[in-house]
Amino acid sequence: MIDARNIGLRNIEVADTKICSIDGENGKLIYRGYDILDLVNHSTFEETAYLLIFGELPNSEQLFDFTERMTEARSLPSPILRNLANRPKRAEPMDVIQSAISELPDYDLNMREDTKSANIRRAITLIGKIPSIVAAWDRVRHSQDVIEPLDKGSHAENFLYLLRGEHPTKEETKVFDVSLILHAEHSFNASTFAAREIASTRAHMYASIAGAVGALSGELHGGANVQVMKMLLEIAEPERAKDWIRNKLSQGGRIMGMGHAVYRTTDPRAEVLRTLSHIISKERNTKWFEITEQVEKTTQDFMAKNKGQSIYANVDLYSASLYYSLNIPLDLNTPIFSIARASGWTAHVIEEKFAEAAPKPALYRPKASYVGKYCGPMGCEYIPITSRLNEDLSSSESGKQT
Amino acid sequence: MIDARNIGLRNIEVADTKICSIDGENGKLIYRGYDILDLVNHSTFEETAYLLIFGELPNSEQLFDFTERMTEARSLPSPILRNLANRPKRAEPMDVIQSAISELPDYDLNMREDTKSANIRRAITLIGKIPSIVAAWDRVRHSQDVIEPLDKGSHAENFLYLLRGEHPTKEETKVFDVSLILHAEHSFNASTFAAREIASTRAHMYASIAGAVGALSGELHGGANVQVMKMLLEIAEPERAKDWIRNKLSQGGRIMGMGHAVYRTTDPRAEVLRTLSHIISKERNTKWFEITEQVEKTTQDFMAKNKGQSIYANVDLYSASLYYSLNIPLDLNTPIFSIARASGWTAHVIEEKFAEAAPKPALYRPKASYVGKYCGPMGCEYIPITSRLNEDLSSSESGKQT
Repeated sequence: MIDARNIGLRNIEVADTKICSIDGENGKLIYRGYDILDLVNHSTFEETAYLLIFGELPNSEQLFDFTERMTEARSLPSPILRNLANRPKRAEPMDVIQSAISELPDYDLNMREDTKSANIRRAITLIGKIPSIVAAWDRVRHSQDVIEPLDKGSHAENFLYLLRGEHPTKEETKVFDVSLILHAEHSFNASTFAAREIASTRAHMYASIAGAVGALSGELHGGANVQVMKMLLEIAEPERAKDWIRNKLSQGGRIMGMGHAVYRTTDPRAEVLRTLSHIISKERNTKWFEITEQVEKTTQDFMAKNKGQSIYANVDLYSASLYYSLNIPLDLNTPIFSIARASGWTAHVIEEKFAEAAPKPALYRPKASYVGKYCGPMGCEYIPITSRLNEDLSSSESGKQT
Repeated sequence: MIDARNIGLRNIEVADTKICSIDGENGKLIYRGYDILDLVNHSTFEETAYLLIFGELPNSEQLFDFTERMTEARSLPSPILRNLANRPKRAEPMDVIQSAISELPDYDLNMREDTKSANIRRAITLIGKIPSIVAAWDRVRHSQDVIEPLDKGSHAENFLYLLRGEHPTKEETKVFDVSLILHAEHSFNASTFAAREIASTRAHMYASIAGAVGALSGELHGGANVQVMKMLLEIAEPERAKDWIRNKLSQGGRIMGMGHAVYRTTDPRAEVLRTLSHIISKERNTKWFEITEQVEKTTQDFMAKNKGQSIYANVDLYSASLYYSLNIPLDLNTPIFSIARASGWTAHVIEEKFAEAAPKPALYRPKASYVGKYCGPMGCEYIPITSRLNEDLSSSESGKQT
């Protein structure tokens, strides 16, 4: 049986990294040496993505060039658009993104080249095109025409425009841009680790990022803020929040959006998102911020009083109401996460493939502890099928026979 | 800096498993308690796949039912076939498989159900359809009509039929069936670990397997036997093998197909594949077996003499010539690996999601050691872009400016 400390690799350092550091005790999140709060206050998603991928903040010329390359990358090859249109309208957005990403290498005419600069080019392609995939799918499934990407404007503005067919307000663009910065990177979370793990076999960038999209789709990872919004919709009114939460907690339930595996104090991203959600909620005159605040406070009070524990909001708690107030369909919350995280994922794949210092990453090939059937070192006796009865086997699992 | 023992997780047990055990010292590979050699000698791929997924060998009725379900699963939804046809003919088969797998949930009308029986159903869907995807793509890219799957016949026969448009010989079917058994499962290799890692977020079966396909595509993993065949083609004649290998090794090169991270003696799969390759080579009167044998012996002699090391053939060495002699296109070697490994991957996803005993698997969220830019706990000073010079940055990486 494995050492309990190895479960989920929560206590195992698997690699060296220069991309991100998290100080869970003090609630600090640092991208490439820079505090997330400085980046939120002074930078843009484009600048942050440059920082993550190249390792340094850009000067004006570098940022201009990088932004231009991302803008050029926005359009989708027409066969990919045709293949979106061929899918049933019920298809889940995360499945559509994963599938479309696996089509991108078809149009990368230099796939044999696995250099750092080729991977940076692929990173820019992915960051540029994922928003177009998300928006195109949302329009296709609503029987709307797909919109051509803007040939200028920020990443945030472009996505909201592609989704809605009209330009967002400056405030919406700003709020969305900040949210992209906050979701851009978070060290070796499950999706980033999946991307690195796939890249460790020397699989290409697109295959690695498609795997990361798969991991992000899980409800324990990128799906969490959807669960938060479902809870808010179920609570429905601010005055119902206290009872709902107390009831849920008394029954031993967990409150989505509260608590984090790494942070032992406030998640710095939650603080920023709380402010943004408050601004948007006031402007739109919606109740979601107020309900969310009640959820947070009631959970904190309950846990302090009944368990003697401190618990804090995580990044999902306030992003749920924020996106909802921006009229973004609920099932696009996780896709939006992928739009932001594409920058962190691709930076990690580049680091996995081209780390300069020893110890260099190697193919991930962990051990497992075998706890199954054992009949000695030569294996169990193989009984021919005609002599097998296996009457103790539950036949229900094997399907149709009753 | 991380502990060198953690690199690639080569020495870390990450989970308990009942699926597979490998005794690298003694060259034993055991699926669910049964020695791979017993399975090769007495069982079929269908029976082995049942064993991997259900944990026990089936009785006749269970095997009949399972085989029927796999046969029913063979056909592809027409929109998926249309989407294959829309891709440029240059698309890499592994990219096509990854993308098509991400379309399968569109046609799984009960995706909300994440029970064990629903996951077994998805496993059967994937095992049934992956061969159809591989064969359909090979025919589409060669401008041939896609063939309807057989409504009877073994998994091995069906794939070769779908690929070629004519029924394989009994001997071809048998050889291919054995190869599928040998490649079905190998514990926590990189692709299986990727599948489990993605499933640990509660992502669905298809998203997890799509990630595994990505990992398998890497040349350090599933791509290895393609490298072997390229070497054989370069050597071209049996009498050239000795010089070619000695020359390569003298220059410090590695011989693909030789050596394994886990086995310290002969890989039991290599032994079986050597026999199969010999049979097919003799029957077809091809030289590839002879060249491969020379590669193996010369490498072993050189390593023993010059490095005092024992080195053994791995699973890739003889599968390369085997598939080539079966007239399977070189770039379908890795896809064929995925046809076989689909059974192991899906069994692992089911174990990851529904392990009954403690300690239960948890979301994989490893730690990393931060070795990047550091300016104290508050982060580096953020200098506004207009004041940034960054002249020390290599501008070549950021793209077009010179």
